[in-house]
Amino acid sequence: MFTKQLSTPLKLIKRCYNRVTPEIISSLKHQLGEGQISTSQSVREHHGKDESSIRITIPDVVVFPQTTKDVSMVLKLCNHNEIPVIPFGTGTGLAGGVSPLMSCVSMDLTKMDQIVDLHVEDFDVTVQPGVTRKQINNYLKDYGLMFPVDPGADASLCGMAATSASGTNAVKYGTMKSNVLNMEVVLADGTVIHTAGKGRRSRKSAAGYNLTNLFIGTEGTLGVITSATLKLYGIPEMKTSAVCQFKTVGGAIRSTIEVIQNGIDIARIEFLDEMSMRLCKRYSKLDYMSEEPTLFLEFQGSQKTIEDYIELTSQITKSNGGGEFMYTLKQEDTNQLWAARHNYFYAVLASSPNKKSYTTDVAVPISRLEQVVEEAREIINKSGFLGPIAGHVGDGNFHAILLFNPADAEEVQRCNHVAHEISKLALRHDGTCTGEHGIGLEKKLILPEEVGMESVDVMKKLKMALDPKGILNPGKLLA
Amino acid sequence: MFTKQLSTPLKLIKRCYNRVTPEIISSLKHQLGEGQISTSQSVREHHGKDESSIRITIPDVVVFPQTTKDVSMVLKLCNHNEIPVIPFGTGTGLAGGVSPLMSCVSMDLTKMDQIVDLHVEDFDVTVQPGVTRKQINNYLKDYGLMFPVDPGADASLCGMAATSASGTNAVKYGTMKSNVLNMEVVLADGTVIHTAGKGRRSRKSAAGYNLTNLFIGTEGTLGVITSATLKLYGIPEMKTSAVCQFKTVGGAIRSTIEVIQNGIDIARIEFLDEMSMRLCKRYSKLDYMSEEPTLFLEFQGSQKTIEDYIELTSQITKSNGGGEFMYTLKQEDTNQLWAARHNYFYAVLASSPNKKSYTTDVAVPISRLEQVVEEAREIINKSGFLGPIAGHVGDGNFHAILLFNPADAEEVQRCNHVAHEISKLALRHDGTCTGEHGIGLEKKLILPEEVGMESVDVMKKLKMALDPKGILNPGKLLA
Repeated sequence: MFTKQLSTPLKLIKRCYNRVTPEIISSLKHQLGEGQISTSQSVREHHGKDESSIRITIPDVVVFPQTTKDVSMVLKLCNHNEIPVIPFGTGTGLAGGVSPLMSCVSMDLTKMDQIVDLHVEDFDVTVQPGVTRKQINNYLKDYGLMFPVDPGADASLCGMAATSASGTNAVKYGTMKSNVLNMEVVLADGTVIHTAGKGRRSRKSAAGYNLTNLFIGTEGTLGVITSATLKLYGIPEMKTSAVCQFKTVGGAIRSTIEVIQNGIDIARIEFLDEMSMRLCKRYSKLDYMSEEPTLFLEFQGSQKTIEDYIELTSQITKSNGGGEFMYTLKQEDTNQLWAARHNYFYAVLASSPNKKSYTTDVAVPISRLEQVVEEAREIINKSGFLGPIAGHVGDGNFHAILLFNPADAEEVQRCNHVAHEISKLALRHDGTCTGEHGIGLEKKLILPEEVGMESVDVMKKLKMALDPKGILNPGKLLA
Repeated sequence: MFTKQLSTPLKLIKRCYNRVTPEIISSLKHQLGEGQISTSQSVREHHGKDESSIRITIPDVVVFPQTTKDVSMVLKLCNHNEIPVIPFGTGTGLAGGVSPLMSCVSMDLTKMDQIVDLHVEDFDVTVQPGVTRKQINNYLKDYGLMFPVDPGADASLCGMAATSASGTNAVKYGTMKSNVLNMEVVLADGTVIHTAGKGRRSRKSAAGYNLTNLFIGTEGTLGVITSATLKLYGIPEMKTSAVCQFKTVGGAIRSTIEVIQNGIDIARIEFLDEMSMRLCKRYSKLDYMSEEPTLFLEFQGSQKTIEDYIELTSQITKSNGGGEFMYTLKQEDTNQLWAARHNYFYAVLASSPNKKSYTTDVAVPISRLEQVVEEAREIINKSGFLGPIAGHVGDGNFHAILLFNPADAEEVQRCNHVAHEISKLALRHDGTCTGEHGIGLEKKLILPEEVGMESVDVMKKLKMALDPKGILNPGKLLA
């Protein structure tokens, strides 16, 4: 059993649920077949956590449905018996969204891994919940197509829909909210719906309530997503990556603001502060770079367009005190650069093997970004935690990865407090506590402060309307 | 009193409501003040209809709130007394969304017409519900900014949010669904919420359920939108309009499909068939054009980009049998062209002064567009109705404007039937019955066929959760 590392959530669960009994487990075995269910300690432990440091308890049993019908059967059984169910994808979340708080069934959807229906000429594809970001892009590249939303981790696409994920190139392509056309969702009582109607995939629709976007970002609390129909994009004619380093954080951030304000259709613009660069250089062998605040950039399009953008962007970085604007057309350099960015989280973790991490995720209007990053840095420095800052600054979204000693209860609490302070800082600047990781367990307490009690009440009414027994991922997102 | 022109909706209202009594009217007067309420016949008639031909009854009273508090007070009173309330913007809808079905209060929001909060550096603005599309763009142009969603009519922006509007340049900028950051909404019981939290305007957020998109497209049935925070865009460096005419509908549609599939970032691509061009030429004096299937196009960006796009697009149209690819940089030519497109609906109405119109609004995946337009033409021709076809073909969305004699009950019924057939045709091709006009009264009967009874049940549960007495725009969208 894990040790508890967050002091808040348990007391917020007011409802009583039934425990998973041996009878329930044998009913599940009977329904699904022996091979689709596991009670082994290691499997249960794997399903008790995501990539955050939150460890509370582990599920009693893990089921591996292979069809939507399996998902529906399990939910019917659990709903009837008032037993919590937590949908589980790749476990790459960062907000404790899949961590059980009580006796429950974990529903691992990775065996449903089929790419169901590709329409090359319409730029859309339908995938089952086990299909990951890398898997779909490998499959699509022979067709000259891609799905651009890229949170770094090789997350499942339906899991990305469930957390409203985004990542490095949301600044150009948007988040999951604007890239899903339709979903199949199984409700708490086992009912199967298609949010836009079965097989529908027109680019726009004004037909009834927007159920697709209602379910995106619900973190498994309103239904289990069993397929998603995604918008695809042509692989750009050309991609060029660039880096530029700065003497000050302000120079990098102001450059970002001006790039956005000048309407440069940038594909990625990522900021890493001095501390982040130190860790990244060591982990990813970026020997040619200094330990200075840095922007990683990517431009896409025709050669002419890219040339225009590079000219404009390098003028902007120069006028903000940026050093050499280094761009590359070589695929291997580009790959190395973005691999370093994607491995950044692991680079930070590797720097302190005995520490755990708490990743903040605030987003603010871009004009506030410089001030908010600087104030966040002050809060972290004052706290004494190691906390490199990096993020998708084109969206005003950045992360501080706070490293703490999980064995020290007082330090855990102080770390939570620092993260909370950074969230509150973002709220004072018209921002959000979470740009892309979701509320999960981590940010439940600040949600009412962000959206207001009246909006939280509306969310609770929606939850009550669709999951009256509250069996779906209880205690997450809403208190 | 109007004559009833739709035979379906009344029988679908199962709930009983109270009538607006003289006591209610005096309470409203007391709450709002004399000047903010009207029972005059002409004001009530104006509020009994939109731009569709649906005429059922008129509201008993029209209120003109000036503040969110006024809106809240009226809703509280009406909710307590179980009296229907219909939010009313500019009355430019096309699906009967504001038509009363029974004794009710019409809530005209046009007096709340302030632009509240412009953040030039963050490209966002907050508007009250009376602010229209043209008003905001006039205001923004001095800042080099624009709000691109353009349904043609000078609709109110909050009304556009309520119907999930889009229009000519959704192909580049998306619909209202992807251009609203936050909304203030008053619920049926008078509670005021901010969908993303008061004052929040970060570009992305994963904080809790996506209430912003839940309320977009709810057509006044879940709440009254009293402000919207919108994403803005820089006015493009350059715009170039173009027209190309074809001997066949297929040539124009296939050109559209290829433009989209080739990733040309077109700002507008509008199709008008032969009959549409005949009416448009006469109404808008487009003397240099023939009565042939035509594409109206607009390109935006830098000169280089536009030149590239024009070269590629003209090759595509030529290879599909298109005539001369005429493009213009002159603002007056561009204005005339797009004024003609925007006045198209009025051009059609003007052609038959004694007729009324029924505007279909299907959208299908782009690969199906040619077949669906051709089959829709066959359905219309077989029916004997005059029915020009035009639309936003880049999104797979097109309209047939069916002209009928409102005095002939049998003809009215036949017209409804033809529209229904065109909707069903779109559904057979993975499409929707409404790309942008909404369900309103017109398409209530086909909604379950499109999204499935299970999804309609979810919508009903949401309605019941947020408006348990059903006072908000009863009988619309949901049966």
